Amino acid sequence: MLRNIPSILSPELLYTLCAMGHGDEIVIADANFPAHSAGPTCIRLDGASATAVLQAVLAVMPLDAFEPVPALTMQVVGNPDSVPDIVADFQSILDAAADHPAQLGNLERFAFYERARSAFAIIQTGEHRLYGNIILKKGVIEA
Amino acid sequence: MLRNIPSILSPELLYTLCAMGHGDEIVIADANFPAHSAGPTCIRLDGASATAVLQAVLAVMPLDAFEPVPALTMQVVGNPDSVPDIVADFQSILDAAADHPAQLGNLERFAFYERARSAFAIIQTGEHRLYGNIILKKGVIEA
Amino acid sequence: MLRNIPSILSPELLYTLCAMGHGDEIVIADANFPAHSAGPTCIRLDGASATAVLQAVLAVMPLDAFEPVPALTMQVVGNPDSVPDIVADFQSILDAAADHPAQLGNLERFAFYERARSAFAIIQTGEHRLYGNIILKKGVIEA
Amino acid sequence: MLRNIPSILSPELLYTLCAMGHGDEIVIADANFPAHSAGPTCIRLDGASATAVLQAVLAVMPLDAFEPVPALTMQVVGNPDSVPDIVADFQSILDAAADHPAQLGNLERFAFYERARSAFAIIQTGEHRLYGNIILKKGVIEA
Amino acid sequence: MLRNIPSILSPELLYTLCAMGHGDEIVIADANFPAHSAGPTCIRLDGASATAVLQAVLAVMPLDAFEPVPALTMQVVGNPDSVPDIVADFQSILDAAADHPAQLGNLERFAFYERARSAFAIIQTGEHRLYGNIILKKGVIEA
Amino acid sequence: MLRNIPSILSPELLYTLCAMGHGDEIVIADANFPAHSAGPTCIRLDGASATAVLQAVLAVMPLDAFEPVPALTMQVVGNPDSVPDIVADFQSILDAAADHPAQLGNLERFAFYERARSAFAIIQTGEHRLYGNIILKKGVIEA
Amino acid sequence: MLRNIPSILSPELLYTLCAMGHGDEIVIADANFPAHSAGPTCIRLDGASATAVLQAVLAVMPLDAFEPVPALTMQVVGNPDSVPDIVADFQSILDAAADHPAQLGNLERFAFYERARSAFAIIQTGEHRLYGNIILKKGVIEA
Amino acid sequence: MLRNIPSILSPELLYTLCAMGHGDEIVIADANFPAHSAGPTCIRLDGASATAVLQAVLAVMPLDAFEPVPALTMQVVGNPDSVPDIVADFQSILDAAADHPAQLGNLERFAFYERARSAFAIIQTGEHRLYGNIILKKGVIEA
Amino acid sequence: MLRNIPSILSPELLYTLCAMGHGDEIVIADANFPAHSAGPTCIRLDGASATAVLQAVLAVMPLDAFEPVPALTMQVVGNPDSVPDIVADFQSILDAAADHPAQLGNLERFAFYERARSAFAIIQTGEHRLYGNIILKKGVIEA
Amino acid sequence: MLRNIPSILSPELLYTLCAMGHGDEIVIADANFPAHSAGPTCIRLDGASATAVLQAVLAVMPLDAFEPVPALTMQVVGNPDSVPDIVADFQSILDAAADHPAQLGNLERFAFYERARSAFAIIQTGEHRLYGNIILKKGVIEA
Repeated sequence: MLRNIPSILSPELLYTLCAMGHGDEIVIADANFPAHSAGPTCIRLDGASATAVLQAVLAVMPLDAFEPVPALTMQVVGNPDSVPDIVADFQSILDAAADHPAQLGNLERFAFYERARSAFAIIQTGEHRLYGNIILKKGVIEA
Repeated sequence: MLRNIPSILSPELLYTLCAMGHGDEIVIADANFPAHSAGPTCIRLDGASATAVLQAVLAVMPLDAFEPVPALTMQVVGNPDSVPDIVADFQSILDAAADHPAQLGNLERFAFYERARSAFAIIQTGEHRLYGNIILKKGVIEA
Repeated sequence: MLRNIPSILSPELLYTLCAMGHGDEIVIADANFPAHSAGPTCIRLDGASATAVLQAVLAVMPLDAFEPVPALTMQVVGNPDSVPDIVADFQSILDAAADHPAQLGNLERFAFYERARSAFAIIQTGEHRLYGNIILKKGVIEA
Repeated sequence: MLRNIPSILSPELLYTLCAMGHGDEIVIADANFPAHSAGPTCIRLDGASATAVLQAVLAVMPLDAFEPVPALTMQVVGNPDSVPDIVADFQSILDAAADHPAQLGNLERFAFYERARSAFAIIQTGEHRLYGNIILKKGVIEA
Repeated sequence: MLRNIPSILSPELLYTLCAMGHGDEIVIADANFPAHSAGPTCIRLDGASATAVLQAVLAVMPLDAFEPVPALTMQVVGNPDSVPDIVADFQSILDAAADHPAQLGNLERFAFYERARSAFAIIQTGEHRLYGNIILKKGVIEA
Repeated sequence: MLRNIPSILSPELLYTLCAMGHGDEIVIADANFPAHSAGPTCIRLDGASATAVLQAVLAVMPLDAFEPVPALTMQVVGNPDSVPDIVADFQSILDAAADHPAQLGNLERFAFYERARSAFAIIQTGEHRLYGNIILKKGVIEA
Repeated sequence: MLRNIPSILSPELLYTLCAMGHGDEIVIADANFPAHSAGPTCIRLDGASATAVLQAVLAVMPLDAFEPVPALTMQVVGNPDSVPDIVADFQSILDAAADHPAQLGNLERFAFYERARSAFAIIQTGEHRLYGNIILKKGVIEA
Repeated sequence: MLRNIPSILSPELLYTLCAMGHGDEIVIADANFPAHSAGPTCIRLDGASATAVLQAVLAVMPLDAFEPVPALTMQVVGNPDSVPDIVADFQSILDAAADHPAQLGNLERFAFYERARSAFAIIQTGEHRLYGNIILKKGVIEA
Repeated sequence: MLRNIPSILSPELLYTLCAMGHGDEIVIADANFPAHSAGPTCIRLDGASATAVLQAVLAVMPLDAFEPVPALTMQVVGNPDSVPDIVADFQSILDAAADHPAQLGNLERFAFYERARSAFAIIQTGEHRLYGNIILKKGVIEA
Repeated sequence: MLRNIPSILSPELLYTLCAMGHGDEIVIADANFPAHSAGPTCIRLDGASATAVLQAVLAVMPLDAFEPVPALTMQVVGNPDSVPDIVADFQSILDAAADHPAQLGNLERFAFYERARSAFAIIQTGEHRLYGNIILKKGVIEA
């Protein structure tokens, strides 16, 4: 734990967020996401919800202002237009955190898996709600 | 996640609990415990409280019936006889989980650190309450 | 060993099953299967039959309900329509374990090898019966 | 698997038995033995009984004829003179395998643990019977 | 880089400070300190002064309130009572950062080396001033 | 060394032969073969001839009965139809070892190298005779 | 630190610059550059500006005289012809260091990333100014 | 050092030359060659000239008699037909060492780099003369 | 294999002999020697006799002329004064190889094991004769 | 190679000299010194003499001015007062390099070995002259 830093950010996760640069992406994944087989380093946070992790990550990491859609969720299989509760929660957290409006985009299930393969890292949370997955693209930090 | 197993038990923690044998000890530590420098493997569960972890561990791991005091907490510095709330919570969870009454013993702060050095592993939880530390000795599983 | 968990599931196998996510596949292989050269991590259970391992795995891991055929066996070389005894045994175990009917599909020998290359892991059992191989796709665990 | 070699001997176990020399010791341990924390390499054979493993090991490895007591079991805690069934089974297997009579000695529980710390390796079997532990000292193979 | 965290704290240093627990010690060392041979992990910050690093570390890490002297510098060889400018600077930074007055102690050169051997980590800065070394003991973070 | 197992089979070689499954291939190579650069694990047996190694390997490993040509040698460069003495020796050993007739095939030098790249392992013997190379495909072991 | 060598060159950076040969390229990157995900070894110099690092590197490493454009910067996104202050600073340092005039070329943002993927190493500085990135190609050192 | 073996051949270089087989290639490179980034293992001999190393290597390693051109140097950039002094020196050493005449071929600079990528190893010498690079193909050793 | 170097000396063994310095010791051990558990690196030469290995080693490595007894064998258990045939063979080989007479000393079995623990390396040969063990101390090579 | 740095200093040696701090010691050893078994990292410079290496090291590394005897050689066995030529050469190089007179001390052969065990690193040169060994203690670099 450290002062003034959300305590849910583990040493390994802080290392990762700090090492990421402009344009690198990180995945916050729910408990059913195939995170270990996706390729990138998998950081586990079994006791935490995806929403708590999103809030903590956005406290220290800006989203990419160079991209119109700096955050992506997964479409419901068979019902791509529905918005699960957890995705609505993600949007609320983004709205509260943003220094500029950040629009949530989304991807079909297997396209989401494919995009996750080139992420910097994947955080596997203990989120039980299905579709509790979000990809974030890191922005620039100006002095 | 797996069926019928508390979801807070991560793959690494399940591995550890399963690999432990009769008499091996594991430490559940709070967020301020110097777990990384103690020597044994440190398994982080940043998002979970010590009480939630204790409950989950006792769901799959029996305490040692060969020992009169199979679980140990840390004494309050300067007030060894006081019982912090979290220690009382530990005792309640033990009482509810036990197939036989398991008495909590305790150790002075630095003796507790010393005992932790020879543990099988240490779980660093996100427990914010001070003195949220407990050492458990694994018992025998009979067929 | 742990309470309430089949004792045949070794620490490494528990780790693996728990780390797998929705859609990841695991192979239970007989003693003649070329498991070490297939690519994925090979977990050995030399003293156990493939049927005992299947039963233990299904006790903790659900099959994928998103897929019509979440389990695959290997066709007999030169006689693709025959059903070896062990494959019949696999079907019985699936029928007994399932919360929903799971149909066994099958693949030609070299197609089976190819599919195994992208599995999460392969369990090499001590099964002496030929064709004692099965691929399982993990499902979602709902809270 | 190989021809003319008990199939329960896994690649890693064959490696180990072959690499051992005159006077090196190996432990066959039951499922509750604290094998991972003892120090030597731990070879798991979760699906096999201690007696099946002993039989297979003695098929390829001679006991040390230089020592009067080349095999040791663990005394029952609180009743050092009792002979558990599994120890009697060990003796029968030794009698059947031996080219010369090999006497079983025994050690108090913690002395047994201490002796195990300097073994070449420990085999953790799936043996459920308590006290299913035996230390074997390898003999010379003459051309 | 991250928001609201001094940018001089590299990913590895953030990891380290976050992983440290109550009572763990870290050394901030000058450019001539024998940091690589001391034993603990050495984290290099070649471009930074010791004072800039001290300021950044104290922004996220509290000193130990359980100890009367939670910070130690090195005595000048042959003149143990003198106070080099950089040590005076260290004291000023501590005074400005502290939620409670933290007194600087000091150790003879080789005693300082010895104490550094059991630190959690050593940060080798680019500090050119001699005696630019300080040991800090981490305190508790209360929720 | 072990009882009833050819003593020339080293621990690493026994491990390898045992870990191989149906259809995996192993190369027995002469002392001039470019074994280290071929890709597969290289097991050295510098003091042994290729014929002694072949005899020992066939004592524990069956050839693949599913394949008409389960063993391959290297053609003489510039004289593909000639049969070097050592190849004739290989055939004699195969004839003596076989539970069914196993026909030796052969490959042009660079095709042999290419095939060796996907072998399970390569044994580099001390064989001084040129063309002392043979690829063996492992068969099934029936209980 | 060493005599006559800029003290900002850390041991790892000296190793790298010395190991590079004719035509190898190194990237000096600003604090926002995605250096850890680019592929090459990432050497961090969090406390140093990109200009200080460039000056130190050119003190020991010549640019490639075989190439007309041995150094490359990144074009401003959306304004490829503008010359940011830091790029002007880079040019001044090159002019002062050169034994022969070295012309700065530049690449579009993603082409710059692509080129960085095949560099020998990337130095991540603490440079806060955007576009503080430069690729250098090492020249020949004549005796 | 060993008896009867050129003392300039370090343990690692002896290992490498001995492990190479028929047709494997090794590069002797000058001090400016980009050896570390080429791919193969790089063995440094900073204190030795390329000619001294060539002489020592040829004392223990034969060139390939199956190939008309078993040794290759690098063409001078912009002047492919010139023969630098060091290349003439290489030819003299080959002439003196050979049991059969070995003709030096050559490759354009980038073709030489490309060929070096698939070498068994690269020896980086301290040779200051430009174009002090040579690729050697190992021959057969007959008993 | 290399020219003018005994072909039984494998790459790893050549590396080892060359890396050894004045006063370092190497053990040539028979097939029953507990070489893997002794501590030093174990180099296997399963197909070779101890006498063939001794001859090859002495061809490249001098014995220590600073020590009166630069070579040691193991005493026969229970009969320390007897001289096994293989020890007589060792003496003959030493006599033939020496540039100065080298006297064989000997050690009791467990004292020999103890001495072997601090050797540079142990060569495990395929020697079937008991007591086929010898420790050699390397001498100085003068230019 | 780098500009203005002696080309005999390899990347690994530069790394080492730069990482050393005040009071750390490095050994320059002759070709017969038992450098690999001494414990510290061994850096080989097979083609270089001990005197050339000493000269190059002193060009970048100061000796410790806090110690009256910052450099030590090895006494001749049986003649501790004699001064071998190479030791006289070492003294001349020290005299020429020093910013202050540095006196050479010496140690008996086995005391020298013992001191070398705690060095930061050992450089094994190709020096053929006996007693070509020297231990250097690094001093402070003032800005």
